[in-house]
Amino acid sequence: MRENVRRFVEKPSFQRFITAVIVANAITLGLETSQAIRESVGDILHFADRLMLAIFVIELVLRIYAYGKDFFKDSWGVFDLVVVAIALVPASGPFAVVRALRVLRVLRLISQLRSMRRVVSGLLTAMPGMASTGALLGLIIYVAAVIATNLFGAALPENFGDLGTTLFTLFQIMTGEAWPDIARELMQTVPFAWIFFVIYILISSFAVLNLFIAVVVSAMEEQIADERRAEEAEHDKAERERDQLLLDEVRALRRELADLREHVSDRA
Amino acid sequence: MRENVRRFVEKPSFQRFITAVIVANAITLGLETSQAIRESVGDILHFADRLMLAIFVIELVLRIYAYGKDFFKDSWGVFDLVVVAIALVPASGPFAVVRALRVLRVLRLISQLRSMRRVVSGLLTAMPGMASTGALLGLIIYVAAVIATNLFGAALPENFGDLGTTLFTLFQIMTGEAWPDIARELMQTVPFAWIFFVIYILISSFAVLNLFIAVVVSAMEEQIADERRAEEAEHDKAERERDQLLLDEVRALRRELADLREHVSDRA
Amino acid sequence: MRENVRRFVEKPSFQRFITAVIVANAITLGLETSQAIRESVGDILHFADRLMLAIFVIELVLRIYAYGKDFFKDSWGVFDLVVVAIALVPASGPFAVVRALRVLRVLRLISQLRSMRRVVSGLLTAMPGMASTGALLGLIIYVAAVIATNLFGAALPENFGDLGTTLFTLFQIMTGEAWPDIARELMQTVPFAWIFFVIYILISSFAVLNLFIAVVVSAMEEQIADERRAEEAEHDKAERERDQLLLDEVRALRRELADLREHVSDRA
Amino acid sequence: MRENVRRFVEKPSFQRFITAVIVANAITLGLETSQAIRESVGDILHFADRLMLAIFVIELVLRIYAYGKDFFKDSWGVFDLVVVAIALVPASGPFAVVRALRVLRVLRLISQLRSMRRVVSGLLTAMPGMASTGALLGLIIYVAAVIATNLFGAALPENFGDLGTTLFTLFQIMTGEAWPDIARELMQTVPFAWIFFVIYILISSFAVLNLFIAVVVSAMEEQIADERRAEEAEHDKAERERDQLLLDEVRALRRELADLREHVSDRA
Repeated sequence: MRENVRRFVEKPSFQRFITAVIVANAITLGLETSQAIRESVGDILHFADRLMLAIFVIELVLRIYAYGKDFFKDSWGVFDLVVVAIALVPASGPFAVVRALRVLRVLRLISQLRSMRRVVSGLLTAMPGMASTGALLGLIIYVAAVIATNLFGAALPENFGDLGTTLFTLFQIMTGEAWPDIARELMQTVPFAWIFFVIYILISSFAVLNLFIAVVVSAMEEQIADERRAEEAEHDKAERERDQLLLDEVRALRRELADLREHVSDRA
Repeated sequence: MRENVRRFVEKPSFQRFITAVIVANAITLGLETSQAIRESVGDILHFADRLMLAIFVIELVLRIYAYGKDFFKDSWGVFDLVVVAIALVPASGPFAVVRALRVLRVLRLISQLRSMRRVVSGLLTAMPGMASTGALLGLIIYVAAVIATNLFGAALPENFGDLGTTLFTLFQIMTGEAWPDIARELMQTVPFAWIFFVIYILISSFAVLNLFIAVVVSAMEEQIADERRAEEAEHDKAERERDQLLLDEVRALRRELADLREHVSDRA
Repeated sequence: MRENVRRFVEKPSFQRFITAVIVANAITLGLETSQAIRESVGDILHFADRLMLAIFVIELVLRIYAYGKDFFKDSWGVFDLVVVAIALVPASGPFAVVRALRVLRVLRLISQLRSMRRVVSGLLTAMPGMASTGALLGLIIYVAAVIATNLFGAALPENFGDLGTTLFTLFQIMTGEAWPDIARELMQTVPFAWIFFVIYILISSFAVLNLFIAVVVSAMEEQIADERRAEEAEHDKAERERDQLLLDEVRALRRELADLREHVSDRA
Repeated sequence: MRENVRRFVEKPSFQRFITAVIVANAITLGLETSQAIRESVGDILHFADRLMLAIFVIELVLRIYAYGKDFFKDSWGVFDLVVVAIALVPASGPFAVVRALRVLRVLRLISQLRSMRRVVSGLLTAMPGMASTGALLGLIIYVAAVIATNLFGAALPENFGDLGTTLFTLFQIMTGEAWPDIARELMQTVPFAWIFFVIYILISSFAVLNLFIAVVVSAMEEQIADERRAEEAEHDKAERERDQLLLDEVRALRRELADLREHVSDRA
């Protein structure tokens, strides 16, 4: 029974059907954002959405039944479960935001298509290499935010009024947005503010650059290593064959010498 | 006959003539953009443009005659045909825009000059490696757009009013333009909007970064592989020569031993 | 005695305690930025800050006692000393700014955590490779600033009034911020100002790009060299073993030949 | 005589003196930008500037005398000559701008310091690899400018009024500056303008990216090739030594076999 269900959910045709439902759901969720469309065919869209949600729930139940505990060990399975489960949270009161997150369901396309799954896995393997630099960047921003709040909080409360506001402002400056406006306004009351801005921009750019390099280097390294391994293997094989040829020759020589010796001894 | 035409269109002097016409056409099309110039020498420019178009049409007819079906197999040939054909579309009514696209004809410089053709080919080979990451980026933007339209549509209809507007806004944010203005305006009605912005900026930057890395890595890989192959070949040759020397020595040894054995046997 | 102190300060539990104090201090310094919190629990925060500072001072005294002169040879030790010492500068009058720098103390997390220390060391090793390009960039900006002040100082004093202002404006343009606004304003009085802007943007982008490349290349180079060395070593080992096998065979052959010769001689 | 002059201009102390004069000149030219300083010590600065210019002229005359025609073959020599000669152009009337360019003289620091000369040489070697892609980018911008002037010239003359204005606007958009403002304004009269902007931004970013990659790849390639060559050489040496050892053994074996044969023959 379980074996049959598994075979069913692994069928390419079933996979394609689910992919099609995800794409259809992406479209209906997109259409639902329009007030006008919602008013004219809202009921149909709502019904279609319910139906597709039901299909996803049934699919997940089948997969959980088919794989048992193994389903929860596969992180893509858990991902599918979570993004579908969001739709089942009552979308009212404090959970109104959750309703907007229903569209995350469309991200199931990633777990459904192998090429995308590979891309995301690639991105995630780059993560650990970024962790230390990312933490350093976070620390730098935090320290800069405390300093900026203390120094500029009184002069420009709109941007540096409290720690949260300053963190947002510094994130904005890190993305290179509109910092000269802030700096010039600030320099009217705090003339030396430019020192802070220049240092912060140089250090944060440098840290972001290194975050970036960590990813590039790890990506390239792997690619280059893969390729080298392949070539080296081939090269090694050729070398080993030549060495083997030599060894065979030398061993033949030893055998012949042994023969000769025996021959000489026999004659003795 | 066909052979003669082919020899004619492949003549360097004919190629240079066409290149010169393209450059001249680029200049006349540039001059035509000026109201003042159009008023004073518009007739001459118009005549020159017609003439040069006629030259292109004749050139293409000759090439199609010369190469037959092969002309349409070469994508650069098809490219030339399309950009010239644009000028023959009636440029009035709904096709007014097409008139502006006549200048695409100038892109024939790319198909005409080998060095540029190589650059464009290089860019196009990088494309497949970008496809999956590009699709992922598109999916992320679409999902983010649906969420943003639902959450912020009411608060800031100018930027998030409908799905199209939101997609444009998110593309703008991805290029790092003026997002703090939008975010700050939005945060007056939706205080937690910054969460969306920070997550969206981090994820989309990371995806764009990876798009970029895919291209860099594939470009470098090829270059490095090419170079390694050349060196490895040289290295291998040296190694093979040394090994051959050894093998020759050992084989000479075997021959001598065989001689010795014969000698000993003879004496017996 | 000294040995005991050293063992104490090197204890993992002591290290963890100091790390915890740094984190706690980061939080209290963050809380202190809020006017509201300062008013309600300012005394407690102030006391906690004093206490934690005392802990840092004691820790440093212990470490200086334990390591003697060696403490000052380790640049991380000096770093710890400086960021803690900042708090001891009287924070009033012209030194008011110093008070804001107390939070630099939190950067001790870097010297405390090995993974972060490694990241920062990595960043610093990239520095020398950047020095020449950085100096070149500085020179370019200085020369451009003198030119811009002379040419545009009268037309747009707000941005190019004196050398300092121009340097700031050029730094801003280099970060790609709001340059078209400045350029368009300037072009109303100095029509050819765009020449300066285009050249400056192209040259400074190119120099920054090369600064960046210097870091990427040095980072990759090291990684790739490390990796290659490891593989080459392995490859070499395999090769050496095969060569040794051959050598052993040939030597055995020589011994056998010597034996044979002796045998022949004996028989003679 | 000529030999003596050459020895004099090549003296490290003379080189250091010239470097010092360049730095001093950089400072005086910087000070001269300030109205206030010009009013108080303008005469002194002017005299110093004349004096330092005289030193440069004498130095160049000495070098030209010392090296003869070779001076003009070295591009750094020509560079020095040009930037010094700028000061000798009458700085009045249409040449007023030239006065501002006197500061280019400070760039002689580059030709004077070896480390900087190396950096600039490095940048210049990257140039040819960029030429084709740069030309392609120029072509794309030109074609886009003609299209945009035709399509949007009437709707937004401020940004797309004539070809020059449009080229500037497109350069601005390529640097990622304030394009959404332009796009949104335009979309009020030309609703489909966003298509142009999105296509232009994607294509130009991609072309710039490839310009960038061309430089990175060529820089890395060289570095990696250098390093590999060094290691390969070392590796080869070890291999050659081992192979030589084997060859020696085998040759010794042949000699011994020849001995044996002789021995056997003798006995016969």
